[in-house]
Amino acid sequence: MDAMGILRQVREGDLSPEEAFKKLQLQPIEDLGYARIDHHRALRQGASEVIYGESKTAEQVAGIAERMAEAGSTNILITRLSPEKAAFLCERVDARYDPTSRIAIAAPKDIAQPIGHVVIATGGTSDMPVAEEAALTAQTLGSHVVRLYDVGVAGLHRLLSQAEELQRARVVIAVAGMEGALASVIGGLVDCPVIAVPTSVGYGASFGGVAALLSMLTSCASGVSVVNIDNGFGAGFLAHRINKLGEK
Amino acid sequence: MDAMGILRQVREGDLSPEEAFKKLQLQPIEDLGYARIDHHRALRQGASEVIYGESKTAEQVAGIAERMAEAGSTNILITRLSPEKAAFLCERVDARYDPTSRIAIAAPKDIAQPIGHVVIATGGTSDMPVAEEAALTAQTLGSHVVRLYDVGVAGLHRLLSQAEELQRARVVIAVAGMEGALASVIGGLVDCPVIAVPTSVGYGASFGGVAALLSMLTSCASGVSVVNIDNGFGAGFLAHRINKLGEK
Amino acid sequence: MDAMGILRQVREGDLSPEEAFKKLQLQPIEDLGYARIDHHRALRQGASEVIYGESKTAEQVAGIAERMAEAGSTNILITRLSPEKAAFLCERVDARYDPTSRIAIAAPKDIAQPIGHVVIATGGTSDMPVAEEAALTAQTLGSHVVRLYDVGVAGLHRLLSQAEELQRARVVIAVAGMEGALASVIGGLVDCPVIAVPTSVGYGASFGGVAALLSMLTSCASGVSVVNIDNGFGAGFLAHRINKLGEK
Amino acid sequence: MDAMGILRQVREGDLSPEEAFKKLQLQPIEDLGYARIDHHRALRQGASEVIYGESKTAEQVAGIAERMAEAGSTNILITRLSPEKAAFLCERVDARYDPTSRIAIAAPKDIAQPIGHVVIATGGTSDMPVAEEAALTAQTLGSHVVRLYDVGVAGLHRLLSQAEELQRARVVIAVAGMEGALASVIGGLVDCPVIAVPTSVGYGASFGGVAALLSMLTSCASGVSVVNIDNGFGAGFLAHRINKLGEK
Amino acid sequence: MDAMGILRQVREGDLSPEEAFKKLQLQPIEDLGYARIDHHRALRQGASEVIYGESKTAEQVAGIAERMAEAGSTNILITRLSPEKAAFLCERVDARYDPTSRIAIAAPKDIAQPIGHVVIATGGTSDMPVAEEAALTAQTLGSHVVRLYDVGVAGLHRLLSQAEELQRARVVIAVAGMEGALASVIGGLVDCPVIAVPTSVGYGASFGGVAALLSMLTSCASGVSVVNIDNGFGAGFLAHRINKLGEK
Amino acid sequence: MDAMGILRQVREGDLSPEEAFKKLQLQPIEDLGYARIDHHRALRQGASEVIYGESKTAEQVAGIAERMAEAGSTNILITRLSPEKAAFLCERVDARYDPTSRIAIAAPKDIAQPIGHVVIATGGTSDMPVAEEAALTAQTLGSHVVRLYDVGVAGLHRLLSQAEELQRARVVIAVAGMEGALASVIGGLVDCPVIAVPTSVGYGASFGGVAALLSMLTSCASGVSVVNIDNGFGAGFLAHRINKLGEK
Amino acid sequence: MDAMGILRQVREGDLSPEEAFKKLQLQPIEDLGYARIDHHRALRQGASEVIYGESKTAEQVAGIAERMAEAGSTNILITRLSPEKAAFLCERVDARYDPTSRIAIAAPKDIAQPIGHVVIATGGTSDMPVAEEAALTAQTLGSHVVRLYDVGVAGLHRLLSQAEELQRARVVIAVAGMEGALASVIGGLVDCPVIAVPTSVGYGASFGGVAALLSMLTSCASGVSVVNIDNGFGAGFLAHRINKLGEK
Amino acid sequence: MDAMGILRQVREGDLSPEEAFKKLQLQPIEDLGYARIDHHRALRQGASEVIYGESKTAEQVAGIAERMAEAGSTNILITRLSPEKAAFLCERVDARYDPTSRIAIAAPKDIAQPIGHVVIATGGTSDMPVAEEAALTAQTLGSHVVRLYDVGVAGLHRLLSQAEELQRARVVIAVAGMEGALASVIGGLVDCPVIAVPTSVGYGASFGGVAALLSMLTSCASGVSVVNIDNGFGAGFLAHRINKLGEK
Repeated sequence: MDAMGILRQVREGDLSPEEAFKKLQLQPIEDLGYARIDHHRALRQGASEVIYGESKTAEQVAGIAERMAEAGSTNILITRLSPEKAAFLCERVDARYDPTSRIAIAAPKDIAQPIGHVVIATGGTSDMPVAEEAALTAQTLGSHVVRLYDVGVAGLHRLLSQAEELQRARVVIAVAGMEGALASVIGGLVDCPVIAVPTSVGYGASFGGVAALLSMLTSCASGVSVVNIDNGFGAGFLAHRINKLGEK
Repeated sequence: MDAMGILRQVREGDLSPEEAFKKLQLQPIEDLGYARIDHHRALRQGASEVIYGESKTAEQVAGIAERMAEAGSTNILITRLSPEKAAFLCERVDARYDPTSRIAIAAPKDIAQPIGHVVIATGGTSDMPVAEEAALTAQTLGSHVVRLYDVGVAGLHRLLSQAEELQRARVVIAVAGMEGALASVIGGLVDCPVIAVPTSVGYGASFGGVAALLSMLTSCASGVSVVNIDNGFGAGFLAHRINKLGEK
Repeated sequence: MDAMGILRQVREGDLSPEEAFKKLQLQPIEDLGYARIDHHRALRQGASEVIYGESKTAEQVAGIAERMAEAGSTNILITRLSPEKAAFLCERVDARYDPTSRIAIAAPKDIAQPIGHVVIATGGTSDMPVAEEAALTAQTLGSHVVRLYDVGVAGLHRLLSQAEELQRARVVIAVAGMEGALASVIGGLVDCPVIAVPTSVGYGASFGGVAALLSMLTSCASGVSVVNIDNGFGAGFLAHRINKLGEK
Repeated sequence: MDAMGILRQVREGDLSPEEAFKKLQLQPIEDLGYARIDHHRALRQGASEVIYGESKTAEQVAGIAERMAEAGSTNILITRLSPEKAAFLCERVDARYDPTSRIAIAAPKDIAQPIGHVVIATGGTSDMPVAEEAALTAQTLGSHVVRLYDVGVAGLHRLLSQAEELQRARVVIAVAGMEGALASVIGGLVDCPVIAVPTSVGYGASFGGVAALLSMLTSCASGVSVVNIDNGFGAGFLAHRINKLGEK
Repeated sequence: MDAMGILRQVREGDLSPEEAFKKLQLQPIEDLGYARIDHHRALRQGASEVIYGESKTAEQVAGIAERMAEAGSTNILITRLSPEKAAFLCERVDARYDPTSRIAIAAPKDIAQPIGHVVIATGGTSDMPVAEEAALTAQTLGSHVVRLYDVGVAGLHRLLSQAEELQRARVVIAVAGMEGALASVIGGLVDCPVIAVPTSVGYGASFGGVAALLSMLTSCASGVSVVNIDNGFGAGFLAHRINKLGEK
Repeated sequence: MDAMGILRQVREGDLSPEEAFKKLQLQPIEDLGYARIDHHRALRQGASEVIYGESKTAEQVAGIAERMAEAGSTNILITRLSPEKAAFLCERVDARYDPTSRIAIAAPKDIAQPIGHVVIATGGTSDMPVAEEAALTAQTLGSHVVRLYDVGVAGLHRLLSQAEELQRARVVIAVAGMEGALASVIGGLVDCPVIAVPTSVGYGASFGGVAALLSMLTSCASGVSVVNIDNGFGAGFLAHRINKLGEK
Repeated sequence: MDAMGILRQVREGDLSPEEAFKKLQLQPIEDLGYARIDHHRALRQGASEVIYGESKTAEQVAGIAERMAEAGSTNILITRLSPEKAAFLCERVDARYDPTSRIAIAAPKDIAQPIGHVVIATGGTSDMPVAEEAALTAQTLGSHVVRLYDVGVAGLHRLLSQAEELQRARVVIAVAGMEGALASVIGGLVDCPVIAVPTSVGYGASFGGVAALLSMLTSCASGVSVVNIDNGFGAGFLAHRINKLGEK
Repeated sequence: MDAMGILRQVREGDLSPEEAFKKLQLQPIEDLGYARIDHHRALRQGASEVIYGESKTAEQVAGIAERMAEAGSTNILITRLSPEKAAFLCERVDARYDPTSRIAIAAPKDIAQPIGHVVIATGGTSDMPVAEEAALTAQTLGSHVVRLYDVGVAGLHRLLSQAEELQRARVVIAVAGMEGALASVIGGLVDCPVIAVPTSVGYGASFGGVAALLSMLTSCASGVSVVNIDNGFGAGFLAHRINKLGEK
């Protein structure tokens, strides 16, 4: 935490106590009234703050993105953004928008050299929006991503025929709704970490993704962990963190 | 229904209205006070009444079994019977008891010629009590049963190496706790009916079998239907009914 | 499973290992990007792949149906298709659409000789869409279907007056919302397999079909199994599988 | 309410304001520290206070019963009393205990002339403890009770053969676990009020009585209302209240 | 049940067996394809069949009402009918519509002499639609109804000031959302049956009426039973049944 | 309660019994048919009755507000009021409307001297509507309010940098959706009462605020209590009550 | 928070940066391996750390209490302590144990002058253990406590006759299981904060306290907040915090 | 998957088709009747099969461990083993048992050089059994583990004073019951993957770990994923997999 870093500087004579106190008060947090932007997060946590677009107004989203871009952030991820808000955003800020994943990237900058190998598999066509949210997130953060879509376990050979691809992965994201069995089957096929993403695809006893969520949490395969229902962003973010470890 | 059968006899002159009315009053139901035994059920539904042992006293179980045996029933299934009640039963009635499935069979009689091919698969060792309840039920009713235990999807080749056995089945019972993915995977491998039995094996988010239940209900494989959690008896009974259809 | 079938050919000299490997790579799976079509499924599982229309775009649905029809599939079932998507589909592919069940059948072909006897009963008028999904599915696959609608247990003689029809069935589908008691009552009247379909009809404590689902899972009648809430397709598909067994 | 009754007496000159105030302060409530006994309840509500035995100590139960008996109450119902507490009670107070229903009756007094006709039906043998709690409650309050046990809907003719008995009832209590369909079927057969009592009999998806509870709440039969799971007392109490209306 | 009644006529010589059988086949049930109308229900159960309007089409509702009116039914209740369907209905059949309760009454006929005393109390203004559904149902069936609206327990004196009105009731219907405490408080004030109706009024942890439902089911007051969430019709119907008992 | 107060006056000779009775009958409750207004509530409970606008019609809301204003109430809070109803209200009554919190204040009057120190903190921007409902409620009742928005625990230093502000509070309201951890962290930082308000912000396993609700209820920090999901009004009301205590 | 306090001392020259850093490292937290004791908590938060006894071993409980007593803490609360662990504790440390509330107080010291007025009311006798946990907690922290037990709403006059006692309270704790209506009724009677404690008393649809919890969360009375099921300690702790505000 | 690996050998001429087929039939799976041991798993997935001890008999556990040890496996993990079964095991096989985590390690072998840096933090003392299950699992697989126990967020400085330790981690396991906020707070402090383990520690609304589970799934901190309630083994296993990536 920063407070500790500042104190270390005090100990090593690099900072006076007065300055230390000021810094703690004047943390690089900009208060917009409706939001507090943390401009130093990229330094501290290796990624700019991500903007959750769902329950913010178009003005709030654009306002935050604008301030972050002005402060030098690039590849600012904005998730769960409706097309209408995206249109508003793109008029105010330099941004790209992907309607399938509903992700916008403000102040976009090309990734020079994607790292590692993240495989994203889905049970069916309907899981694509969540899978693409994961894929764009990991790619924007710098990972190399391979997509294996519509490989659900009811037609097992569709998945088995991709076994080599799976085994090359440093981390696999398994995206599935309905009964979510994909995570368990992949978990038994690979020896790398598997991030399971339950989706709200389904009806009746799928209860908006609960069936897949419980199924993935109780998977009999080892090496599987789970993120929230439809949380493609979280899976992509974590996959990149794990993927990066293999670079060191 | 019998009422209709009796009326048909009236129409065809085989029965007087007076007799018809008496028969409807004097249905073959024996009232023991705590239970009404339906002695004609074997005729009507192809199987003697089954005694659910869990919440009956040892005296009640033995009393019912005794009366049914006296009335000529054989291979009377008693399910969910504790060892203590079973001991009490065996002193009063001719009966065999299997402690794994907790099934007793009163007035046991050998099955001359088991029919068809029922395959019972389990995800793990812990699912055995439920699977054996299904197996003994189907066998007692007259089916030929093959057991494939501990073939859970986390080690998929254990299941795939038994693919030929599965494909010979007229009906498959898939017994699994935890995430219950076994039903979906088997459902994708065979083209016969699959009866899924969720078990209460597991902990935490398996919620006593709910995770497996939901997973099986939302299976993306077609041809799968589900019975209650831990209902091995129900699966075995239904499997025999389906299996019998192939004999006709 | 196919992998095993291919290996058997290798063993028997009908296939070289090189060809075997190619076959495994070149499974009859066509990758459209958003979907992987399994063109050999009709061979393996006795029925073409079924298209779940709900969360696919009109373009995706039409694209898959078109490719399947070109590859020779007939009577391709498309379930949960909105009228709008159906209109789009019918412009691109030869297809029939039924608005009650929301089923489309692409590349339709008449069934020469419907087999067996599948009875579909509903508790009320409101369960008709689900019942029709089951009925059209079973009919399209080749079953003879009889409908008994609005025979709920609150007016028991409506059901009892149809007892003969029920007893002729090889398999019965019981479709009911609210308390779902229909499945138990029918289960006590017949000696064939009963497939229970809970529907989301109801309000308050019916919780979108949960009351009926739990009621059907805990039915005290033997021989009853359950599919997902509103899963008319699954019930019709399974009913045909069971019905077919009686033909052998 | 009493406060109003007292004020009315003031208005009509039967009571001075000073006395009225005292009465309101000195309500016939006796405070034992752990309980406040309402000695006038029999006057106000037509029945003595009932003691819920489950979470009281044996001393508390006996203490309350003793004070009520001393104050002149008779036929004091004590529900959910374990055999151990009952033994303790019977040493201190004149009381009878029924182990099936776990009801004790302190200061018992014979009912001269039971009124009306309350029918209590159960789905199975296992529902007897709850049914007996209802039966003893209604009998102790003064109702004539007829028992129809083990008439569950899976063997419908067991129930139909008792149709005349049901039609004589002024109120029916339907006690059932598992899927609880008994309430709906009886609700369709009679034209008197039906009180449905879900029981915790069952396993798996019966969720301790929830399946029966939801089933009964969503019954498609009119004239059915529901009490808490296993609440035989509540059903018996209400049945007597309704039964009494027919006497007026 | 009718089958029994017909058989009794056979026994007493009032009916030949041939006629009896015909009657059982030709039950007064008219099959409209989408619905089976039970024209004799008013005879058997004291009230015409009630039409649940929610998930029927306007054509179906009008069709059923029309046939019932033609067959001589009057005061036909149609519940949960949208204004649009009601407009359609009123063009085809003689009917009155109440938009608050969403009830229509087809073939309306004045009630000569309302009987008894049914009190309907609500916790708040928002519970009025459900309360009116109960009130109109009971009135249409012939009961005298008194309304006490907005007497929730958070302002207890609003309720206490109506204590005399409550005590005159033969049966009370307590309608409340949120925490549903009204049923318990009224249950402690009166000595007649109380029918509790939880409503879906509320937000957050009221979970669409579940909080009120559970609260009412676990009421510590005796003499209270519960119907489904928002089931004003069921409460009104049952209240009339109970109210009628006091007339005999 | 008033009834007691009136009786005390009788005892002390300030009121004749006749007048007392009349007062109890003529409580200051005005019955509008759809609502009973309690005009003396401000006297008894320190605040005018609050109007819950969600499920009342625009006419009902305006009618109640109008009558209250005429009777002399000021700063009448109307919560959960849609902009449409607010527009209708403002035409009929002197009122101010805040669209973020959806609160209207009828017969507004300035607060002379706000008391104490209520701090309202939110986890994120999306929690603002609920927080503003709390803030406006407390302010309207007379409290001094400080807002700390977007200080969620994932960026802990945003919260820690405001520690002094938190420590000055007499009561803190912690408003958060998602996992609701804010309440626990604040609970560990302050020694005044903390009112936790879970919000429905989130998706998937947040289940409309349930995750935050459970998290807050099980907080390991002492001194924290919880109100309903999204119940900003309740939190603001309670905060003012607690805040007032510090004034005495 | 302490870090800030230490920094302030640095700014005001009362502490050198080196010492500040050491203090932050050498926080008054003692690490026993299995627990970290915070010896300065009484200073910071006005109360010593409280020991949750439920899932600690007797050795761990005694070890922590011993170290806290040695460091000068008095009146150390230990909650949810079984009699067995309490016996072990009392042999090692000076402590008193109350078996009803299962609270132990180590290093007990008399409270000179209890402050304020905390009223604790329960719905029934069975709620006493939770109420006593609240009472002992508040008393040990220094509050004056009045107990009103067994005043549940089903016998409303038991509660109303105590209205004056309630109105004297600075804060009320309402403890109730079953339907938990007590909180709403009390909330309507008083104008001080009400802390509602749902208890797990009940059966069936009380679901271990969930019915009471939901009922209390959705209370239509203002000024009510809720703590966890059976959390008497939390209520007593918070009540004391609120009570203290009135002293300032 | 192995099937593919074998086929690759066929393609490259390292294996004849006949041998390939035999290998597929003779997979290194040993069938003990009650279990199928996969002896090659260590090769394929980097770790021997792990034995879930909970629902196996002592004989089954010992039998499997014995066979694995004979086949050359070392450091065989057996989880959720009761002390009784452990005693039985240790008599038959060379094994060590840890009663806190209930883990046994059969055929134990020292880890030469633990790799990386896995930090395991707990909210409280009560979470230790789960944390130790994670710790022993990761250590047995070869990871270097650091324990930070009892650093829950209600005393935030306990956690903040360990910030440097946390920042050295390659992966952090956050173990917490109650409200589970620890995962979110740690997630905001570190930039490595965080594995959250909800525990069943708590009571009331913690619902056996559900509150913590939901809280962790909906964490507003990025980089957090979740395993099943109390699944210390799964967290430790996954942590080692991630930790290993940093070694490459």
